[in-house]
Amino acid sequence: IVGAGLLGTSIGLALTKNGVDVIITDESKSAENLAISYGAGRESLSSDLPMLVVVCVPPEATSRIVVEELKNNPQAIVTDVASVKKQILDSLTESAADLTRYVGSHPMAGRERSGAIAGRADLFIGRPWVISPTTESSVGAITQVENLAVELGAAPVKVTAEDHDRAVALVSHLPQAVASLTAAQLIGADHEDVSLAGQGIRDTIRIAASDPDLWVQILSANSSEVVALLENLQEDLSKLVNALHTADSEAGKAVIREVLTRGNLGST
Amino acid sequence: IVGAGLLGTSIGLALTKNGVDVIITDESKSAENLAISYGAGRESLSSDLPMLVVVCVPPEATSRIVVEELKNNPQAIVTDVASVKKQILDSLTESAADLTRYVGSHPMAGRERSGAIAGRADLFIGRPWVISPTTESSVGAITQVENLAVELGAAPVKVTAEDHDRAVALVSHLPQAVASLTAAQLIGADHEDVSLAGQGIRDTIRIAASDPDLWVQILSANSSEVVALLENLQEDLSKLVNALHTADSEAGKAVIREVLTRGNLGST
Repeated sequence: IVGAGLLGTSIGLALTKNGVDVIITDESKSAENLAISYGAGRESLSSDLPMLVVVCVPPEATSRIVVEELKNNPQAIVTDVASVKKQILDSLTESAADLTRYVGSHPMAGRERSGAIAGRADLFIGRPWVISPTTESSVGAITQVENLAVELGAAPVKVTAEDHDRAVALVSHLPQAVASLTAAQLIGADHEDVSLAGQGIRDTIRIAASDPDLWVQILSANSSEVVALLENLQEDLSKLVNALHTADSEAGKAVIREVLTRGNLGST
Repeated sequence: IVGAGLLGTSIGLALTKNGVDVIITDESKSAENLAISYGAGRESLSSDLPMLVVVCVPPEATSRIVVEELKNNPQAIVTDVASVKKQILDSLTESAADLTRYVGSHPMAGRERSGAIAGRADLFIGRPWVISPTTESSVGAITQVENLAVELGAAPVKVTAEDHDRAVALVSHLPQAVASLTAAQLIGADHEDVSLAGQGIRDTIRIAASDPDLWVQILSANSSEVVALLENLQEDLSKLVNALHTADSEAGKAVIREVLTRGNLGST
């Protein structure tokens, strides 16, 4: 495991628990030591010949590290767990790396907290785990990454990089943007006003606590998909704002009702 | 209790559990019978002389029913639990009703489900309960409504109708609008895409399942406060969309990072 953040540490904890010999490294020695002290794996030895390398570094660094690991471990299958797949695939395709041994992946599990300290062995249980083979990936490589997902209690789902990025724009990146934008409206609010907050707003903005350094990379790498969704949202928001300006009229109320009814439809 | 919906039934269940003799009525006999069969109170008798009338009907009907109850029960204190307070107060002030015996209130508790069937005796435990006296409300009336809140495990908080409406626009109506608008983006999405959804989006759009008939009344009655917040959101959303169009540039990334960082700030 390369990268001892939330995902790397969680994968290490779960595999170690299952009796797998896990090597976990991080360019930050303190993060690496923390993950090791939690039981997410051991230090690497020069004699190690890993069968599978799981790259768990931020999206912007992922393709570079995948290329390095493919080169340094010619015996190994290499996968990554980045939240965006197309940009990484494009970058790998341009490289001279041996992509028969590479399969992209993305466990659909996360937390609004980050770092080794947030790692949990049960993070992946019952969650989908996207497997995005390249056109060159070998069947053996694909099977090995699928087995990793199953070993961690997740359900592997084969999805192309393009389809993955469109799907996560909708089910992950859009809600992240919305939660962040909504939470920002609370900045500077009266303490008394905020003290009336209930579970509704807490749930709506929970993921606004996510790591900005990670998310600026995710949203940038998937910007064209995300912007298309946000432009639809902009249009619907404008309709609602106009309707609220005429909320006394039946026409205004009808549009407000439509927004709420469509919300019902979309949430089922 | 007039109105056997989520709040009326929940109040009835909690008071009955505490040994209070509760009369619960609803213009829908089937809702009334359902609430009674759940143990939320009993049918009214012509000899009844209630001490306290709690009006739990939709916002649009609230002021009319409060006026009726004040007139029909000259011995009683009357309160309501509507999610908007200013429009109701204005309408009551215009009426000839005896407002010494009226105190507005709003328990900051709810669920995305509605009706007697969703009622729970523990709905109010640990929640703030807004008490909005009129300028005419008697001290005795205020105390009685505060006691009701305490009896149900809630914490009474005195807030004027104006301050209440500004606060709930931020902590309740804004998130409702955002959740509904976001959930609507999922309409027509590929089943495969949606199957990748995790807890993040589920939390973000949970309250989009709320009752449109109720919420069109709430948003309309508080439209000026809500629209001011949604216009700020529109502005921030435009900035984010523009930044995503230039996500390759450092300037674009800086704005995306600012949105995420402000989301962090607002969510703490």
